[in-house]
Amino acid sequence: MGMALSLGRRGLGRVWPNPNVGCVIVRPNENGGRVIGRGWTADGGRPHAETRALDGIDADGATSYVTLEPCAHHGKTPPCVDALIGANVGRVVIATGDPDPRVAGKGVAMLRAAGIDVITGVREHEAREDMAGFLLRVTENRPFVTLKLASSFDGRIATATGQSKWITGPDARRKVHAMRAGHDAVLVGAGTVRADDPTLTVRNTGAVRQPVRVVASRRLDIGAANLLATLGDAPLWLCHGANVDAQKWADLGAKTLACDLQGRQIDPVDMMHKLAASGLTRVFCEGGGSLAASLLGAGLVDEIVGFTAGIALGAEGTPSIGALGLDVLDDAPRFDLIETTQVGADIMHRWHRASLHLGQKTHPVGPISR
Amino acid sequence: MGMALSLGRRGLGRVWPNPNVGCVIVRPNENGGRVIGRGWTADGGRPHAETRALDGIDADGATSYVTLEPCAHHGKTPPCVDALIGANVGRVVIATGDPDPRVAGKGVAMLRAAGIDVITGVREHEAREDMAGFLLRVTENRPFVTLKLASSFDGRIATATGQSKWITGPDARRKVHAMRAGHDAVLVGAGTVRADDPTLTVRNTGAVRQPVRVVASRRLDIGAANLLATLGDAPLWLCHGANVDAQKWADLGAKTLACDLQGRQIDPVDMMHKLAASGLTRVFCEGGGSLAASLLGAGLVDEIVGFTAGIALGAEGTPSIGALGLDVLDDAPRFDLIETTQVGADIMHRWHRASLHLGQKTHPVGPISR
Repeated sequence: MGMALSLGRRGLGRVWPNPNVGCVIVRPNENGGRVIGRGWTADGGRPHAETRALDGIDADGATSYVTLEPCAHHGKTPPCVDALIGANVGRVVIATGDPDPRVAGKGVAMLRAAGIDVITGVREHEAREDMAGFLLRVTENRPFVTLKLASSFDGRIATATGQSKWITGPDARRKVHAMRAGHDAVLVGAGTVRADDPTLTVRNTGAVRQPVRVVASRRLDIGAANLLATLGDAPLWLCHGANVDAQKWADLGAKTLACDLQGRQIDPVDMMHKLAASGLTRVFCEGGGSLAASLLGAGLVDEIVGFTAGIALGAEGTPSIGALGLDVLDDAPRFDLIETTQVGADIMHRWHRASLHLGQKTHPVGPISR
Repeated sequence: MGMALSLGRRGLGRVWPNPNVGCVIVRPNENGGRVIGRGWTADGGRPHAETRALDGIDADGATSYVTLEPCAHHGKTPPCVDALIGANVGRVVIATGDPDPRVAGKGVAMLRAAGIDVITGVREHEAREDMAGFLLRVTENRPFVTLKLASSFDGRIATATGQSKWITGPDARRKVHAMRAGHDAVLVGAGTVRADDPTLTVRNTGAVRQPVRVVASRRLDIGAANLLATLGDAPLWLCHGANVDAQKWADLGAKTLACDLQGRQIDPVDMMHKLAASGLTRVFCEGGGSLAASLLGAGLVDEIVGFTAGIALGAEGTPSIGALGLDVLDDAPRFDLIETTQVGADIMHRWHRASLHLGQKTHPVGPISR
């Protein structure tokens, strides 16, 4: 299962709207077994991991390790349970169940009905972490959201005059590009586009599949010269409010998503619903401070990746997180430390939402509790 | 020398105004040598490490490892070079020179004149780090300053309503108490005293020698009820500006230090000169944001210890560092990462001033370049 999980992680950021599944076929022998097939969800989400692992091998009587309950329905591909049954495997070991109502327990039931021995819940916690984006999209109609904060050690992302290049070093920035590649989309607010005119593409990592660039801008009052200039490299989606000329941007090649408003801002919950409905499972938000505060305030941030540089910018610098409207500490969003490490001259620290319970046993699968 | 350095570190925060020296006496034999004496500067600064290491042993022909050039002058104790010469040691190995003009090279010269073999510069970098407070006091007339920042990951030390108990967890707070014990004094600004009414004593670490509590308050417009209530446990020093009733505080038992002003604030450089003149070699500043900014702006912070909690407080929270008046990134104070690690649920990160060159070869010793 460890190998299957590792294979599954190859699909991070590359397989949306599908889950990043890994599958290993093992022929039992006197030494425990021999790997005869390996597969993971292909770029774009098809073919599925099981199909690829079974391709060209004789799996009669073999054991299949798969990180997600095999699909039971006819979608754009035939059901994976049919493939496993057709290959006459003897046993299927599953990390976690698929909450998709077209599968949810049916995959396991169909395998068992075919006389196949099925074991579930093996290394379930890791599988649920790896596929959190897909699971959240199915159960909560929203993607997994990672918030990146790259700041001075007093939490500032620019000087009072707006200088921000560069607070963190080249190693941290390279790491950010690799992280972009592990997400379906990169998300920024309108202020960041106006201030930095970024391209938001993945560069210098060897990645081939570019994440979608998403900009949240209520009025679409952005220039976005570099985003438009790189439309050939990666898609551009614009989340906007009412009464704006979205057609103009559609004509330029962007996809436009009209979102509800919450006061004078785009409603972050509705925006995430719209992004999930468009297929996104993993979103990497790179700020700015207002968007970060909006997502944090709505409880939509699942993971925070902080890069902290050995520099002080002072209270007049731009804050990494905008106003949250908190009065008491008990109301503050809390996160649990996953790791802290040195990256070049900076430190990197990763945190998970304190109420994120991806590791719970959920077979049969229900919504992930928050 | 490693053992001598380790012994010397026992004196951190306990020996001011003297240096925290360590000394080991080794009798050479066929196996390399046998430790026959060990000593470190005693609490309060006397007796010196060499005297304690030589106490009660026959050091005739032995080798003495000492982390700082032995003193050559009659102070409150006789010179250590006399003790080493009197004990008839055969060799003295020294980590780094003493920049005190009463010693600076004279200690080495006197030993050599007595026919003793002297080696210098052994593990000098570590020795200069360990004794940085003493070295800075002698060469720059100021103490080594550690700035502690305990904040949310967006760099806030309290909510908009002033709530700050507790952002970091019990393990981080315990670590802070241990760090206080390793410094001669704890320093805070008037705002922190007014907001928190702290005692600033070392608690729950088993430490016996309490650091001096220093408050920087231009107008002495503080209540300081808890600081005054604990005067029997630890001294209280008040750095203040002109035209204040310092005598009132002196009558209450505090030591008062009149400092120059810089605009409407206490001049941080003059304050540090006054503290060094009063004997302090290591100062642990615990904020608040205005004092932190004042020290950083004046280039007086040698080390930063950050504790970052997995909590977001938002832009309306109190910043850990006040206004620095920076326009461009190139002018921002920069620090080099020493370590980052998990402490309970929080992360701890230590940084040294980027221009801190304690490791330079400085024998004969000159001022430490900044």
